[in-house]
Amino acid sequence: MKKNIRQGNQDFNMTEFQPAKGTRDIAPEEMRKLLFVFDACRKVFEKYGFAPLETPAFENFELLAAKGGEGVKDEIYFFRDKGGRDLGLRFDLTVGLARFVANNPNMQKPFKRYAFGKVWRYDNPQAMRWREFYQLDIDTIGSPQVEADVECLACFCECLDKLGIKNYYIRVNNRNLLKTFLISKGAQEKNLDDWFRIIDKLDKIGKEGVEKELAEKGFDKKIAKDVVSNLEKVSEEFGKLKNMEGYDEIIRMMELSKIYNISNKLKFDISLVRGLEYYTGLVFEVATRDLKLSLGGGGRYDRMIKSFGGPDLPATGISFGLSRLIQYMDEKNLFVLPAAKKVFVANVDETSKSYAIGVAQKMRSAGIAVETDSMGKKLGKQLEYASAAGIPFVAIAGESEIKLKSVKLRNMKTGKEEMVKIEKLPEMMKEK
Amino acid sequence: MKKNIRQGNQDFNMTEFQPAKGTRDIAPEEMRKLLFVFDACRKVFEKYGFAPLETPAFENFELLAAKGGEGVKDEIYFFRDKGGRDLGLRFDLTVGLARFVANNPNMQKPFKRYAFGKVWRYDNPQAMRWREFYQLDIDTIGSPQVEADVECLACFCECLDKLGIKNYYIRVNNRNLLKTFLISKGAQEKNLDDWFRIIDKLDKIGKEGVEKELAEKGFDKKIAKDVVSNLEKVSEEFGKLKNMEGYDEIIRMMELSKIYNISNKLKFDISLVRGLEYYTGLVFEVATRDLKLSLGGGGRYDRMIKSFGGPDLPATGISFGLSRLIQYMDEKNLFVLPAAKKVFVANVDETSKSYAIGVAQKMRSAGIAVETDSMGKKLGKQLEYASAAGIPFVAIAGESEIKLKSVKLRNMKTGKEEMVKIEKLPEMMKEK
Repeated sequence: MKKNIRQGNQDFNMTEFQPAKGTRDIAPEEMRKLLFVFDACRKVFEKYGFAPLETPAFENFELLAAKGGEGVKDEIYFFRDKGGRDLGLRFDLTVGLARFVANNPNMQKPFKRYAFGKVWRYDNPQAMRWREFYQLDIDTIGSPQVEADVECLACFCECLDKLGIKNYYIRVNNRNLLKTFLISKGAQEKNLDDWFRIIDKLDKIGKEGVEKELAEKGFDKKIAKDVVSNLEKVSEEFGKLKNMEGYDEIIRMMELSKIYNISNKLKFDISLVRGLEYYTGLVFEVATRDLKLSLGGGGRYDRMIKSFGGPDLPATGISFGLSRLIQYMDEKNLFVLPAAKKVFVANVDETSKSYAIGVAQKMRSAGIAVETDSMGKKLGKQLEYASAAGIPFVAIAGESEIKLKSVKLRNMKTGKEEMVKIEKLPEMMKEK
Repeated sequence: MKKNIRQGNQDFNMTEFQPAKGTRDIAPEEMRKLLFVFDACRKVFEKYGFAPLETPAFENFELLAAKGGEGVKDEIYFFRDKGGRDLGLRFDLTVGLARFVANNPNMQKPFKRYAFGKVWRYDNPQAMRWREFYQLDIDTIGSPQVEADVECLACFCECLDKLGIKNYYIRVNNRNLLKTFLISKGAQEKNLDDWFRIIDKLDKIGKEGVEKELAEKGFDKKIAKDVVSNLEKVSEEFGKLKNMEGYDEIIRMMELSKIYNISNKLKFDISLVRGLEYYTGLVFEVATRDLKLSLGGGGRYDRMIKSFGGPDLPATGISFGLSRLIQYMDEKNLFVLPAAKKVFVANVDETSKSYAIGVAQKMRSAGIAVETDSMGKKLGKQLEYASAAGIPFVAIAGESEIKLKSVKLRNMKTGKEEMVKIEKLPEMMKEK
C-alpha cells in the first residue's frame, strides 16, 4: 500500500504521513471555523451562567463501562497503562462530568458547565464517520425542574441565533408521556424498551417499517397499527393527553419557552425517543427545516449519576451536532470570518526589510493581523505569496516610501494602489 | 484502597470517581484561567499571521518513534487498535505538525501555525508531573532565516505583555556557536553530544557538578575547567566569538530584536543547550527574573521533518510553559477575570419567576452573564447560592417590583439596595 512520491528533488513515502486510521487533521481554514463556533457559543454559555469544565481524555475502564456497558469495550479505544490499569478514551463528555460531580459532592447546585473537547469511538469504518471528533455540550446538574431544561434550550437557541442559523425547529417530547400513551393503547410495560427502540427508527424506516418491525417482535398488529397511525395526530392534538404522566412538564416547558421567546421553535412530537437508554423524561432534538440536519439534542438523565454509584442528582443537557452545524453553516454561507491576515508588508531589499517590520508592528499594535516576509523572498515572490494566501492588502516599502514615511498600499482585489502615511495606516486598515 | 463515604442519605464509593492515575479534572475556576491565557495568546498569534492547526490525539507508533526513538514506547501511552495498528497518544504537538507538513507538500511556505491541545506522557509518578497536560505552541515551517525565529520571539513577548508579565528575560544561544567554542577549547567533535548533555545541566548541578561529570565522562580536566570557567565570560563578551559558526545569526537576531523592540529582553548565554537533540541552531528559553520559572522555550529544528522521511524543510518554534505561566500569573495576581456571573435575578414566588427570567433575558441581550433560579429554591436559599457562588449583584423581583417594572438591586459586597427600572438595568450593570 505504500507509495513513493517524488516531490521537489526528493523521493519520499506518503503513507507514513497519513493520520492514524479513522482520524484526520483539521487544517487552519477549518479550524478557524470550529473556533469561530466555539467562541460564539462560549460567549452565550457564559451569559447563561455555564462555566467551563475539562475532564481527562481517558478514564478508568470501569467508569466507561458503567455508562456504556461491558460491551462498550468493542466500541472504544481501550488500553492498559504500564501499571496494568484498564483505561479507555472517553466516548463522550458526559461520563467525565458525571464522575466529576460524584467526586465533588459538596459543590453548589445547580452545577452548570460547558465542555468542548475531543471524544473517540471505534466506529465501523463503513459508517464513514471519524473515530476522533469534537463535542460541545452544556449540562445542568442538580435541578429536577423543567426550568433547567428550558434554560438549556434557550441557551442553545441563542447560540444558533448568534451563528446566523434561523431556519430550525426543536422536536420535544417526554418519554414518560410516550410510555403512558403506549400503555393506554395496550402495549405491555415489560416491552416498552423494544417499543421505544423501534419507534425511534420512524425517521429512518417510515411508518410501514416501524409497523413491520413491531410485528416481527411479536407485538399485536392491531395495537401496532393503532399506535403508529396515531403518532402524528396525538402530537398535534396533545391537549388530549392531559392527565397522562409527563404532560404537565410539557405544558410547563411551553409556558417557559414563551418567556424565553423560543416557543415558536418548539414542536411536540410524541414519537421522539432519542435512542440512548439513559434519558428519563424530557428529550429534545434540534433540526434544520431545509436540510433536515440534526444540529443537536439532549434531554433529562436523572438516574445516570446515581447509577454510577454517585449521589442521586437529576441532570439535563444538550449536545451540539458540531460537524453538521459546520456543514450547514458552510452550505448556507454563514461563516463571516475576516481574512486570517489582512495586510502583507512587502520589502524590496534588506534595508527596507527593517522598515517593513516596523510598519507591521505599528499595525499589530492596532490589532491588525499582519504578515511580513521571513523567507528572504524577492518582491515578486512576496506578492505571489500574499495573493495565494488570500491576503487582501499589500503594503510595499521601498526607498521612496521610506523617505516619505509611507507605504504603497495595494488592494489585491482591485489592483488599486495609493501612497499612505505610516501614521495613518493603522486607522485606515482597521476600517477596511 | 476503596473507601465508603456517606453523603446525604447515601453511601457511595469514592475511589471510583477519581480521574485515571496521573490525570486530573480542570475545574471551572482553573479552566477559565487556561482559556483566558489561550484567548489572549491566540489574538496575538493571529496578528502575527499564525493560524490554528489541530492534529489527532494519537498517531501511528512508527511516527512517534521516528521522533522519540523506539524507547519512546516506555514513555508514552502506547496501544493497539482493533485492527492491530500500533498507536500512541501524542507526546507533543510538533510530531503532528511535522507529519501534516510532510503530508501536504504543496502548501504555501512559510507555514505558520499555532496549536493548543492536550499531550500525554507516561512519566514516572515520583516526578509529580501530570501525565496529561496542555501545550501551546507556535511554529514557522519553511524559512531558514533568523527573521522567522525573531518573529516567533516577538510574538511570544507580546503574549506575555498582554498577560501582564513584564519581569522576564530570554536566554538565547546558537548551538553551532557552542559547538565551535568547545572545539576551539580542545573538545573532540565526536564527543559533542556528551558535552552538550552535561553543560545543559549547569542550572541544576552548578559549575562544579558539570566539571565533575565531564571528568567522569573521561574528558580532559584542564579543558573541562577551561570551558566551564569561561562560559559566563564568553557570554558577556560574545563579540570575541566573531568568525565562529553561528555568530552571524546571533548578531542578526540582535539587530532584528531591536526593530521588534524586544532587544532588552534577550540575553546571550553560550551555555544554553535546551536538551532535546533535534535542535539545530538558535535556541531560546524564556524565564522570569523573580521566580526563576521557565515560561517557555524553543528554537530551530531544521532537520526534523526530513528525518521523518519528509521534505527538507527548515523549522523554528516556541512552546509555552503553560502550567508555570499560570502558576506565575496566580502568584503575581495577574488574572483579571470578571465574575463568571454578574447578576442573579431572584424570584420570590412562582409568579415572579417568569418576570425574573424576562429580566435576565434583557440583561443577557446586553451581553451580561446572568443566572436565575432553576431549582425552585426559596428566596433565602437563592441569596445563599448567589453569595456562595460569588455573584456580585442580586436583582430581587417581587410583587411590588413587578408593579413598578423594576427590581431591587442588591450589591452583595456592600449590602446596599436600590430600586432600578428594568429598562435602565442592562446599561447600569454593564458599567458596574
